[in-house]
Amino acid sequence: MYKLTILPEKIQTEISEDTNLLTAILKAGIFIRSTCGGHGTCGTCKVKIRKGDYLTKQTHWISEEEKKNGYVLACQTQIKSDLEIEIPRETRIEKIQAVGEEIFTFTDKIYKSPEEKIYSLSPLAEKIFLKLPKPTLEDNIPDFERIKREITKNKKIDELRIDLPILRSIPNFIRQVNWNLTASFVELNNETEIIQLEPGDKSNEVYGLALDIGTTTVVIYLVDLNSGSVLSAKATYNRQISFGDDIISRIIYAEEKGLKKLNQAICDTINFLIDSIIDETKISNDKILAIQAAGNTTMIHLFLGIPPEFIRKEPYVPVTNFPQTIKASELGININPRGIISCVPGVASYIGGDITAGVLASGIDNSKDVSLLVDLGTNGEIVLGNREWLVSASCSAGPAFEGVGIKCGIRATDGAIQRIKIENEKIEYSTISDKKPKGICGSGLIDIPAELLKKGIIDRAGKFILNKKNSELYGKRLRKNTDNEYEFVIVKKEETDTGKDIVLTEPDISNIIRSKGAVFLGIHVLLQEMGLKFEDVKKIYISGGLGTYLDIEKAIFIGLLPDLPRERFNFIGNSSITGAKMCLLSKPARIKANEIAKKMTYIELSTNSKFMNEYTSVLFLPHTDIELFPSVKKEFEKLGNL
Amino acid sequence: MYKLTILPEKIQTEISEDTNLLTAILKAGIFIRSTCGGHGTCGTCKVKIRKGDYLTKQTHWISEEEKKNGYVLACQTQIKSDLEIEIPRETRIEKIQAVGEEIFTFTDKIYKSPEEKIYSLSPLAEKIFLKLPKPTLEDNIPDFERIKREITKNKKIDELRIDLPILRSIPNFIRQVNWNLTASFVELNNETEIIQLEPGDKSNEVYGLALDIGTTTVVIYLVDLNSGSVLSAKATYNRQISFGDDIISRIIYAEEKGLKKLNQAICDTINFLIDSIIDETKISNDKILAIQAAGNTTMIHLFLGIPPEFIRKEPYVPVTNFPQTIKASELGININPRGIISCVPGVASYIGGDITAGVLASGIDNSKDVSLLVDLGTNGEIVLGNREWLVSASCSAGPAFEGVGIKCGIRATDGAIQRIKIENEKIEYSTISDKKPKGICGSGLIDIPAELLKKGIIDRAGKFILNKKNSELYGKRLRKNTDNEYEFVIVKKEETDTGKDIVLTEPDISNIIRSKGAVFLGIHVLLQEMGLKFEDVKKIYISGGLGTYLDIEKAIFIGLLPDLPRERFNFIGNSSITGAKMCLLSKPARIKANEIAKKMTYIELSTNSKFMNEYTSVLFLPHTDIELFPSVKKEFEKLGNL
Repeated sequence: MYKLTILPEKIQTEISEDTNLLTAILKAGIFIRSTCGGHGTCGTCKVKIRKGDYLTKQTHWISEEEKKNGYVLACQTQIKSDLEIEIPRETRIEKIQAVGEEIFTFTDKIYKSPEEKIYSLSPLAEKIFLKLPKPTLEDNIPDFERIKREITKNKKIDELRIDLPILRSIPNFIRQVNWNLTASFVELNNETEIIQLEPGDKSNEVYGLALDIGTTTVVIYLVDLNSGSVLSAKATYNRQISFGDDIISRIIYAEEKGLKKLNQAICDTINFLIDSIIDETKISNDKILAIQAAGNTTMIHLFLGIPPEFIRKEPYVPVTNFPQTIKASELGININPRGIISCVPGVASYIGGDITAGVLASGIDNSKDVSLLVDLGTNGEIVLGNREWLVSASCSAGPAFEGVGIKCGIRATDGAIQRIKIENEKIEYSTISDKKPKGICGSGLIDIPAELLKKGIIDRAGKFILNKKNSELYGKRLRKNTDNEYEFVIVKKEETDTGKDIVLTEPDISNIIRSKGAVFLGIHVLLQEMGLKFEDVKKIYISGGLGTYLDIEKAIFIGLLPDLPRERFNFIGNSSITGAKMCLLSKPARIKANEIAKKMTYIELSTNSKFMNEYTSVLFLPHTDIELFPSVKKEFEKLGNL
Repeated sequence: MYKLTILPEKIQTEISEDTNLLTAILKAGIFIRSTCGGHGTCGTCKVKIRKGDYLTKQTHWISEEEKKNGYVLACQTQIKSDLEIEIPRETRIEKIQAVGEEIFTFTDKIYKSPEEKIYSLSPLAEKIFLKLPKPTLEDNIPDFERIKREITKNKKIDELRIDLPILRSIPNFIRQVNWNLTASFVELNNETEIIQLEPGDKSNEVYGLALDIGTTTVVIYLVDLNSGSVLSAKATYNRQISFGDDIISRIIYAEEKGLKKLNQAICDTINFLIDSIIDETKISNDKILAIQAAGNTTMIHLFLGIPPEFIRKEPYVPVTNFPQTIKASELGININPRGIISCVPGVASYIGGDITAGVLASGIDNSKDVSLLVDLGTNGEIVLGNREWLVSASCSAGPAFEGVGIKCGIRATDGAIQRIKIENEKIEYSTISDKKPKGICGSGLIDIPAELLKKGIIDRAGKFILNKKNSELYGKRLRKNTDNEYEFVIVKKEETDTGKDIVLTEPDISNIIRSKGAVFLGIHVLLQEMGLKFEDVKKIYISGGLGTYLDIEKAIFIGLLPDLPRERFNFIGNSSITGAKMCLLSKPARIKANEIAKKMTYIELSTNSKFMNEYTSVLFLPHTDIELFPSVKKEFEKLGNL
């Protein structure tokens, strides 16, 4: 056994010879990037060896300079002695602290969606205090039937289920507590099940969790099921990130015997969040009786340990869109072991329960008018519809807005540049938590091309304009890098946290254009499929991690969103967890979610001829057809750039 | 560790010092009587020590003579060295081979009850062969939903459940078997659940078990669920007998921390029967997908491991009358572990699912006319009713007709005297399997008092008539025993298997009279409660172990059954297992059984004033009021005995 010391934390751990260094680091509880899942093909798990012997494969991801300084790819390195290593900041996955805002609140036990639809409080789990009448010769129905009779005085139940071990405990228990007890129920698919009996009145101690399982981020709410109020909210990275950044690389990792690890990683993530909630609130795990989860189809498959393989292979079939409610003990999730886990149903391989939840939260399915929901997460999903119909598509926007595939792109964590403005040739920016800049996150990646275009630094194709004016004004910032690509320096290394320049390259801009184009074209195709025009969309709901920080003007300027009156746009934050919370709290919401999932049509864009035919026209800023963007046209005319 | 040798089998087993001898014998797999459950109060577990040291408590159950010969009560004896013991025949519980007759048959997938009610074949478990269409881009619903869609083409299903491990196996499995597979379902309470997927077409291999859990005997049928035909039938003693003969002693044993042992004993009994069925038919356990059990309320509680304590305590409440369907694995029953166990619902503490099954099998609930069901088992249960109403009562007849409490009484096993006739002062008898007589079983115990009464050997109070005629004709047979009781020798020791005289004592006759009186009075009270007369009963169904061998004439003669036209009597054998088989095979039968259990009223006789007031009038042969028995009165007039 060797000793591994990890700097700068000075974490120490014991490892055996020949252990893979990536595995060792993850075991030590430190999350580092490993986009390809440990195959040595992404170059993201770079670490620096300070002391000790090791064996590492040569790779083009490590430059000669880096090699000299002891950099290796952790996944390609075997440990041969005691080792001291350092994990560079850019390799590290930082803990995120923030939780997406929430714009909906439960007041007076009633939930009001934006469309004024009212959902009654009828949570997934409940407790009822029972004062049972003692049996007599005239009233000698059995113990369990007596409990059931008392319950149905308060609650309409068709079938009341009970597990054998609890049934066995009934006769002695109810007499010990002198016929005064609290029964806990859960809604298990179509049945109601008693999962716990407690002495006396414990009806005020009943809690549930709403859970948003994102590809990147996992968010959890602790909810008081009596009042509907959120007592605590936490978020962290999905630990599966270590096995791949996006859905496809996770599916491939699952196929290669990694399913168990991915399942364990997400369950560990959730248990970690639960622990931190328990720590904060001092509410014991046993009092948490239900989890309502929402996530994309792949995440839900991985959470339930179901092979996701055929989601990515034509014709793209999941194993199920309507996962059944299960017991928490089946996945080892640390709530009451008889508590339940329910997942919001999905629609297709690339339209999951997170989108169903989003539709529910936005309420577009209740409106007479046609509305649009745009969820900008790791993918880009869109839903168009009203109370009569719903169509959806997944845009394969790619994870560009999460910083992936962008040279200095990072996720929306501390130090990420989220706003950029070019004013009088000076570049103004703000970062998350006002930390020293580390890279650019999604909202920043929308701002930059808009600003560059406005200032005439790039053209509508996203190429740098190498004219005299630009050379004079931005000479040092606009340059060619060692890879022979043009790039624009946003922040100079003196100001950054990484000690390196933060830049945006021409290929980065192409990436962003492809992403924004995919989302816009998705919207366009859905409208065409329904015979509608942009003007027919009366409301647009923007959700997802990117959503909250998005600058609508700039998003329209680069052609990500359609050019509609600004008052039609609504930010609804993390609509996946909002929808999950609604389902946790309200049976009508659960029924509604099921109806939405069943009703929603999915249009596969990757095989759609309209999508294919028009693809080149969206690879412009904002579009080849400027008439589609009248306000941008006006702006161009003002700027004289058209 | 000491060696215990059990004769005459020469079975050897290892035991530790101070082990209780009764426990050691049971562990060796030998069943001996132990009516009181090992408390030393019944004297039935008498064994003979041949060699070795032991410590035993003094008891009045062992005479001085027996003590000299090494007899002890096994339950009161500790082992102190290697031991050689012999188990006398009367202590032993023999294996029974016979199975009650069955008078109903399933023909052409349709069940016809005596009342011509037709039940369709829709068993608790089914297999369906599926040829799934391969998914395409146009038809890319998820794998599980695809299976479900195909199934619902053949079968109406509201909710299709599936366990997580099977869901996880679906995507790879269905592609491996090239979309051709057989799905196994079970009916789990109100839901349908897929419990197994097999490659290709296995739809013809689906079996179930009907099970009658009697206090004394357990009967099992292996049923082909495609055809409804019974492939094998087996019966054996309930291994719980070793812990007490009747329901009350079992409940007391359960209260005294014996519940686990009793539960294990009945599960062992059932697994033993399953093993022997598998041995015979070579059908593997995995192909048995469902068990439909019927039994009295206490037996079902013990089978499910539910404390039965409050069944015997006023106000006599069971834990449940409607036990939920569970998985076989929950009880360790050796069928397919995902297979199910369903129990026919009961009515009250002393009217169980066996009686519900009996009503279903007899069909009295379908008739316009009032009918009567009399189940003569360890207790005596009666149901009166028609298609509009059903009332029931338990007669506390006691186990006299099973030979318990009768000096030479035994259960209906090989060598039991089942028929007796006194002709020309000679006693003619027949035994089960024509073996040497060992004792008298139920049907014999009804014959004897009838014959003794006819011949003027006893009077209508059941007392021996010690006159000159009887002394001349039966001098040697009619005698006083060492306990100073009068007794009548049925078979002399030279002819018996035990080497002892088989006799009937005056207290035996009193026992029989009390038992027959309780049943008759129960019927009488039910009729009075409904404002009916005996003549209003158009059909009488006799079921239960005793039922099949009963001589109706003699049963009426001693006043066990009402004196009605003989063509109204029907023997329906073991109606509990017949009803269980019906429920195993037909959903309408299962629904019917539920309706019967919900509809049936229970009248508690032990607190009923009519029952109390008229009790003394039934302690006569046939009754104090001979006018209730016109045919017996006529016979008496012919015999000149009245």
